[in-house]
Amino acid sequence: MTTTVIDSPAFTPAQINLIKQISIAARSLSLGGHDDFNQGQVSARMPGADTFFIKNAITGFDECTPDDILQASTDPEAPKDRLLPPEVVLHQAVYNARPDVNAIVHSHAPHTLVLGATDLQLRAVSHDGAFFEGRTPRFTMTSNTILTLDVAEAVASALGTYPAALLRNHGGVIVGKSIRHATVYAHLLERACALQLTAERVPGGYHSSDEGDIAAKREFNFADLSVRSYWDHCSRQVHRLLPLYASGQVS
Amino acid sequence: MTTTVIDSPAFTPAQINLIKQISIAARSLSLGGHDDFNQGQVSARMPGADTFFIKNAITGFDECTPDDILQASTDPEAPKDRLLPPEVVLHQAVYNARPDVNAIVHSHAPHTLVLGATDLQLRAVSHDGAFFEGRTPRFTMTSNTILTLDVAEAVASALGTYPAALLRNHGGVIVGKSIRHATVYAHLLERACALQLTAERVPGGYHSSDEGDIAAKREFNFADLSVRSYWDHCSRQVHRLLPLYASGQVS
Amino acid sequence: MTTTVIDSPAFTPAQINLIKQISIAARSLSLGGHDDFNQGQVSARMPGADTFFIKNAITGFDECTPDDILQASTDPEAPKDRLLPPEVVLHQAVYNARPDVNAIVHSHAPHTLVLGATDLQLRAVSHDGAFFEGRTPRFTMTSNTILTLDVAEAVASALGTYPAALLRNHGGVIVGKSIRHATVYAHLLERACALQLTAERVPGGYHSSDEGDIAAKREFNFADLSVRSYWDHCSRQVHRLLPLYASGQVS
Amino acid sequence: MTTTVIDSPAFTPAQINLIKQISIAARSLSLGGHDDFNQGQVSARMPGADTFFIKNAITGFDECTPDDILQASTDPEAPKDRLLPPEVVLHQAVYNARPDVNAIVHSHAPHTLVLGATDLQLRAVSHDGAFFEGRTPRFTMTSNTILTLDVAEAVASALGTYPAALLRNHGGVIVGKSIRHATVYAHLLERACALQLTAERVPGGYHSSDEGDIAAKREFNFADLSVRSYWDHCSRQVHRLLPLYASGQVS
Repeated sequence: MTTTVIDSPAFTPAQINLIKQISIAARSLSLGGHDDFNQGQVSARMPGADTFFIKNAITGFDECTPDDILQASTDPEAPKDRLLPPEVVLHQAVYNARPDVNAIVHSHAPHTLVLGATDLQLRAVSHDGAFFEGRTPRFTMTSNTILTLDVAEAVASALGTYPAALLRNHGGVIVGKSIRHATVYAHLLERACALQLTAERVPGGYHSSDEGDIAAKREFNFADLSVRSYWDHCSRQVHRLLPLYASGQVS
Repeated sequence: MTTTVIDSPAFTPAQINLIKQISIAARSLSLGGHDDFNQGQVSARMPGADTFFIKNAITGFDECTPDDILQASTDPEAPKDRLLPPEVVLHQAVYNARPDVNAIVHSHAPHTLVLGATDLQLRAVSHDGAFFEGRTPRFTMTSNTILTLDVAEAVASALGTYPAALLRNHGGVIVGKSIRHATVYAHLLERACALQLTAERVPGGYHSSDEGDIAAKREFNFADLSVRSYWDHCSRQVHRLLPLYASGQVS
Repeated sequence: MTTTVIDSPAFTPAQINLIKQISIAARSLSLGGHDDFNQGQVSARMPGADTFFIKNAITGFDECTPDDILQASTDPEAPKDRLLPPEVVLHQAVYNARPDVNAIVHSHAPHTLVLGATDLQLRAVSHDGAFFEGRTPRFTMTSNTILTLDVAEAVASALGTYPAALLRNHGGVIVGKSIRHATVYAHLLERACALQLTAERVPGGYHSSDEGDIAAKREFNFADLSVRSYWDHCSRQVHRLLPLYASGQVS
Repeated sequence: MTTTVIDSPAFTPAQINLIKQISIAARSLSLGGHDDFNQGQVSARMPGADTFFIKNAITGFDECTPDDILQASTDPEAPKDRLLPPEVVLHQAVYNARPDVNAIVHSHAPHTLVLGATDLQLRAVSHDGAFFEGRTPRFTMTSNTILTLDVAEAVASALGTYPAALLRNHGGVIVGKSIRHATVYAHLLERACALQLTAERVPGGYHSSDEGDIAAKREFNFADLSVRSYWDHCSRQVHRLLPLYASGQVS
């Protein structure tokens, strides 16, 4: 069972707000280079909920509005709206495996994809990479679109307790405890991969942060307050560069 | 014999629609980085027709409107409008060799061009490459503009039954059964080459999808329904970022 | 003690002008690719002053207005406004160590960051690099955000009398005798690093300017008059591409 | 002796038109990535004239209007307007050495600059490179700004009868028989260098066009009619993306 914002004015204010945040997140991902036609998804749920909201199968990150967000059940057996993206099973599997996760991004961001196609370990070249070093397992069972629950559960299993998994020859899956976290982490991952791919190609090698610095960066630079500050900046960028409505009525 | 949309209001609604789609395709190619001054062409025909529509010699992808599209015969011996691009012979040769082809893109897209200049085989680094691995023959007889029928037929021969050919030190030729398919394939090819060129330069090599995944991707990700969905997204992008008319009367 | 422009209309015209210049500098840095969410700072002081003006902790380079600039003391022991960026200590330490410095940029500009992560010496590939060759020490004590005075003083010590320091796996610190100088130098450094990183990856090596040319470039291309001319161009670019106010009342 | 368009309404219609073309050329160069603050120049003369028109020292390519164009003598001994760029001597030396040259571009375009810093020979990776292979001598006497007539004459001597010279660790000088030719050639050179730098970094090497193809490309793709067609496209792009005036009164 699925419903759009417009179909169901009965959503709670908190749910309406979450739906708006998902559409802002989608546009922020577009500004960060995550577009690949209309492929990829971003979803989020209220903590503990057995339904979640997700961008539909047709809409691109770059054009997403609250009306393009659908509600879906975390139960893979529940009937599915025909506009749900086929990869909704990936979101279901991850939500069911990870009670701590309330938002998921799946995209084909180019640098994430290329790093995922190599055997390179993600390194802490910058703050961005420090968040991810040692925490981006590769999923190598298949490089295909995630269409079935068993494959989706295998991705969730590969992801484990980590914030992201690299889907080899496919893209990335990035998760967080809120839509803010997942969106910021998706930006961090793409930037970390871009910087590392540049550093890898320079003769003579490069340094990355040591364990102590990585721990300190995770504590300070990626504290909840920091993530909220980055998200707020992303949201303001969307409102300036890719506003949801010409009249700007979405706040 | 050639006629513009404005010269001949007698075109059928289906032909008018095709002409509009060609101009949207041209602008989508521009957004995808296919511009090289006003060089390159995009053309399409109604299935089975012995005429086709093609961007004229003067107009760039980035500025193409329906008024910039000319009609041409598939017969290389037919008289030619002086505004037809000299490479119209390439389109004629391919249409005559490939009854299944109803649209052709020829461009100097930079990553396609550079990959074509190497001896590298296109690999399935991402979904994009999966569509093309083993299906992009190189045309190496000449790197020149295709000005004569015999060279055009040699390109068509090199292309064979494939969706694209790399013209060494020149660019690419991409074909499809509709303007939607050819445009989407042209985007796929440029993105596949860009991702692979990045992966090639990373020490330690990279993986690409195996035969089973490639087959599955071709069946699912590049099914007609998927291609239509990608095209519709391209079309909406053009309407937002590079609209044909300020008043937006072309739908 | 800190005050915004709007809180304190008692600022002198020269101070108001400096505050406006800082917000223009921030936007120019954004146009030059220095954005990393809302991270990084730019600050400036009137020559000899024991206070300085600095972008607050929340605002990104891309969106900075005069209202987003705070005043801070150069005394690390003075009480701090809660909106001051935590790295304000870096600015305090550098101002105290360098009476000749009246403006500081700290950013995570990508090419500066990657070059800083390597052991490569910055070379005079272009005019830009000529300004910096032999004058960009690396700070390697920590790659973390500069949160304490002792670390900030260690950065100031590494910087010595130079115009910039590379903070390994973190970013860059660029200083100048005016906001114009520091901003122009930050652009020069990012461009120098970008050009060198491209040159490093080309087989066969590259040349860089010799000592005589470097000396001549520093005297002519980076004379005060030249720097002012570059800054004025940056300022006009900001007014065209990223204006502070729709009505353009800031001159 | 120098005069601006506005100072001297007595310019002939042909001269006024040339001045407008120079400002369009400047903006087209900006769109092609030739900006480096306000550095670089573009100049042109009426065939056979002993004066020429040149962008002033203050204005960037991106913001150039007809009012920013100055007239200068080809005689290096003639008194100079203080707003003339110091490198006006380079233009004087080339005009005096090359009666066939009626327009000159000097810029710090990044890929041209990096290729110039290497010992690589420019190769015919694409049509663009075919125009230049074997015709881009390197000037290595100095990498400094060209401030004196003797250095300017040495550049002219290195340029010889060719369409461009690479100024090692400085940038490029591109010449043509008209402003249209010089502008188009400057775009070709930057694109040729960008494509080659990508190809150079790919393992396994790359092919370039053979002598026969190069000759054919020069005859067809770079015939006067082709160059005019490319220029006209550049001009339309400027009017769309970077118009000289909001009201668009310059045609």
